[in-house]
Amino acid sequence: MRLFPTLQNYSRSWLKDDLGAGLIVAILIVPQAIAYAFLAGLPAETGLYAAILPLLFYALIGTSPTLAVGPVAIVSLMTLEALAPLASDQLTLAAYATTLALLVAAFLLLFYVIGLGRWTTFISHSVISAFTSAAAIVIVLNQIKHLSGLSIGRDGPFYQPLLSLIQQSHQIVLPALILGLIILLFLLIWPRITRGSLAKTGPLFAVAGGILVVTVGQINIDTVGDIPSGLPQFQLPQLLLHHWQQLEWQQLLPSAAIIALIGYLESLSVASAMALQTRSRIEPNRELLALGLANAAAALTQAYPVAGGFGRSMVNLAAGARTQLAAVVTAVVVALVCLFFSDWFTQLPNTVLGAIIIAAVLPLIKWRDGLHAWRYQKSDGLIWLITFSAVLISNAETGIFIGISLSLLLYLKRTSEPHIAEVGRYQDSDHFRNIQRHEVTTSPEILLIRVDENLYFANSQFLQDYINQRISQSPQVRHVILIGSAINHIDFDGYETLQRMLTQLRQKQILLHLAEFKGPVMDQLQASDLLSKLAPGQVFFTASDALRQLGGK
Amino acid sequence: MRLFPTLQNYSRSWLKDDLGAGLIVAILIVPQAIAYAFLAGLPAETGLYAAILPLLFYALIGTSPTLAVGPVAIVSLMTLEALAPLASDQLTLAAYATTLALLVAAFLLLFYVIGLGRWTTFISHSVISAFTSAAAIVIVLNQIKHLSGLSIGRDGPFYQPLLSLIQQSHQIVLPALILGLIILLFLLIWPRITRGSLAKTGPLFAVAGGILVVTVGQINIDTVGDIPSGLPQFQLPQLLLHHWQQLEWQQLLPSAAIIALIGYLESLSVASAMALQTRSRIEPNRELLALGLANAAAALTQAYPVAGGFGRSMVNLAAGARTQLAAVVTAVVVALVCLFFSDWFTQLPNTVLGAIIIAAVLPLIKWRDGLHAWRYQKSDGLIWLITFSAVLISNAETGIFIGISLSLLLYLKRTSEPHIAEVGRYQDSDHFRNIQRHEVTTSPEILLIRVDENLYFANSQFLQDYINQRISQSPQVRHVILIGSAINHIDFDGYETLQRMLTQLRQKQILLHLAEFKGPVMDQLQASDLLSKLAPGQVFFTASDALRQLGGK
Repeated sequence: MRLFPTLQNYSRSWLKDDLGAGLIVAILIVPQAIAYAFLAGLPAETGLYAAILPLLFYALIGTSPTLAVGPVAIVSLMTLEALAPLASDQLTLAAYATTLALLVAAFLLLFYVIGLGRWTTFISHSVISAFTSAAAIVIVLNQIKHLSGLSIGRDGPFYQPLLSLIQQSHQIVLPALILGLIILLFLLIWPRITRGSLAKTGPLFAVAGGILVVTVGQINIDTVGDIPSGLPQFQLPQLLLHHWQQLEWQQLLPSAAIIALIGYLESLSVASAMALQTRSRIEPNRELLALGLANAAAALTQAYPVAGGFGRSMVNLAAGARTQLAAVVTAVVVALVCLFFSDWFTQLPNTVLGAIIIAAVLPLIKWRDGLHAWRYQKSDGLIWLITFSAVLISNAETGIFIGISLSLLLYLKRTSEPHIAEVGRYQDSDHFRNIQRHEVTTSPEILLIRVDENLYFANSQFLQDYINQRISQSPQVRHVILIGSAINHIDFDGYETLQRMLTQLRQKQILLHLAEFKGPVMDQLQASDLLSKLAPGQVFFTASDALRQLGGK
Repeated sequence: MRLFPTLQNYSRSWLKDDLGAGLIVAILIVPQAIAYAFLAGLPAETGLYAAILPLLFYALIGTSPTLAVGPVAIVSLMTLEALAPLASDQLTLAAYATTLALLVAAFLLLFYVIGLGRWTTFISHSVISAFTSAAAIVIVLNQIKHLSGLSIGRDGPFYQPLLSLIQQSHQIVLPALILGLIILLFLLIWPRITRGSLAKTGPLFAVAGGILVVTVGQINIDTVGDIPSGLPQFQLPQLLLHHWQQLEWQQLLPSAAIIALIGYLESLSVASAMALQTRSRIEPNRELLALGLANAAAALTQAYPVAGGFGRSMVNLAAGARTQLAAVVTAVVVALVCLFFSDWFTQLPNTVLGAIIIAAVLPLIKWRDGLHAWRYQKSDGLIWLITFSAVLISNAETGIFIGISLSLLLYLKRTSEPHIAEVGRYQDSDHFRNIQRHEVTTSPEILLIRVDENLYFANSQFLQDYINQRISQSPQVRHVILIGSAINHIDFDGYETLQRMLTQLRQKQILLHLAEFKGPVMDQLQASDLLSKLAPGQVFFTASDALRQLGGK
């Protein structure tokens, strides 16, 4: 396996681009890293640490040249939801966060080993879109706390922050609210009135402005406070190492699995979208390994779970990044910030961080996806709506679980009542068409049945019921020809059902024949004893052959 | 809705048959009811009560003339597993059991309302067979306690009873063990050396023999003990009524849902098997209502969850039952036993009950199903093995959940990499066949692609990747014709993928056309804006038309 795959055949002319892009992403990532750490309920430095070593490890293996790995909004929210029941003080939370990152890494590596990356995703676009939209809303609502200076607990329904805003309006810290709203407005307008790299520097100005206002104006609002200077230590999660027996790490397993899955899907969709533009090639399974290593690096450097971020990667691409060298530059800059400039952020107001987070996640709310899905097909729209509501009402994990289960069940429900057509010869051709849609010739003794779906456990009984019912209507039938042109696979239940049908039909002096079955399906039936039991029923190459030999028209 | 549907058009000549069958089932059910109540960790009378009113309520609505509802082995085991964490003394357990029955009834009625009975089952035969086999083994192992007189806790792995048997062999109550083994041997041999109704009377003789040995022989082994005489009271579950706030009934919800599902599936499969023989007709959804009412009746009469039993129904059918009147007779006889003869069972040894249970569930262990599934297809065999192991290692609920999820995922995995064929004209016909399997004519400018699967979220990306790759190999291609003859449905993800493909192909000056799409799919695409975006790409009735008009061969 080649290390640093995106740096192969490096051209010297790219160096300038990578340096520039890396620097711009670093300028964006420093305030975001602190903000997302706060969102996850963790100390500021964990966010910064998550933007150093994990980037290097992703660069080592990852196949996307421009994916910017690090702390991201939705994974931060899921981290908060996973850890909140286990601890309340920041230090214990941070200790649990490294454990969580280690478990996320373990799941990603497990997915890598079982080759999950080669499976196409089982999560529909509607589910992901609804999940992301609802999670973004929860994140925005969580920021009301920082913007207003109110202390709002995490209990209560998702709209609790809005409620508190009204109920406790006399306690609102007005300077924080006004500063936050101004910064938010600035962040929303800035990209529209500027161009190129400058458009991405909004958060930098917001941070500088916020610090300036607080220090010069001597305004007393909540700020980030001390961030320990220096680099994280490279060590195993201490809590896990020394107290793993008391540690309730098993409780983190379901969360870790879902964070791993969501983090992977988010990263992969960003990477794929960029690959389309840059004509590069992503290897999904290798991405699992790369993200797994990035999370392991997070676990070993007092950080928390990471993934590839959408906004940040887009900035990276737009700023001209060519390879993962840009990410290495970003990591070095963030490390320098940790070493020498961490005290600059002591006076950074929380309300500014809140504004930065809101501006970053607002584009993730996509009502229109739900609307488009609904217009195309009610059931897809419903899945969007239910997933969206479930994330809001319960939490991110339960919500996505409900969404995935629902979309799978609906698909299976659809295939469980397959389209079954009784067909006849179309004019004098070799074509056989549905007798209900076309003028076709049929023979009273011969029933031609085409099933437009694989035969498997969820629908084989349906076929049997259909044929039984059809035969009870036509007592003259002596031959049933099953046309398998649309059957790609028959599982054990399907095979058993065919056997049962065979026996039942024979009791009524009716023969079952197969026609137009595909090669691989025939191979499988040949290996079983079905074909020998079929005799004197026959296997025909085409329905036309079958009809001719059985004396039909 | 007609009440007592199976008693419509009752012929007087059937009366003798129903009376006889009802009596024989009653003889079988009394010892079984006590035994299954013990298996569920409940007092003996709860089993008897479960064989009175629930039978009448099923008869009121149920569509199977011969299904014998009442306490059954696997539901008893699941009841034990659901209640064991909540209480330890028999009285509290019994109170929880009625609550569980009420929840099971609620789920069955919910399933009825959403029309689950019209969905074909999502549980494959392999999963059910493996689940039943493993549950039967767990039940057999649980009886070692009764047979040996040892006190074996419910903690520890499934093979704990065997281990205890060896470790505590000096404490084995030898009279119990010997009596139990003799009775077991008798129960296994009796049906083979007798015929007709007599063959079903084994348990009756076993009970009589057991009581005789204990009373006459003055042997000191554990017996059933006092059973309160009289009928159950018709009342709401008292515990639920007065203490529902303290009651942890929410914890019972998952168990209740799974018991409802399993109970329904077991009943339905027994009823369907009998319907095939008697040419009667089962209405699956109505069965949900009937079983829901039966369980509600169980909840209101101090019983526990019920279902249709396999062995008992077979006895009912073999004894000549014509309608549910037989079940009414059974219920009346059991009620008479409760009223006048309950003290007869005081001296019934537990070891005899253990032997009766073992003899009843041994036929449920079906290794061969797993073996046959494996021979047909490794993946089906694996599902059997994993479900089987999961039930043994964890518990019935988790096991069936794992089995269901696994079989669904494997099916989706299969459809997520659909068979995609590049096709060409077969000889001079209108048939188009796979270019890899047949000698066909193709045109370098036209790519004909047939997808043999519905286009949905799990596989639409796969199609796009396939076409992208195929086009990069053939730069002359100007037209891609997608043949939809095997596509029955396109979901929103599929539709979005088609749109994306359209745009990407157009950028490369390639047109996308559709051919042989089915009516319902075209209707859906017509309602969306895809067809208008397709232009100047076209929609063709057949691939042959498409090829001719696009100037290919």
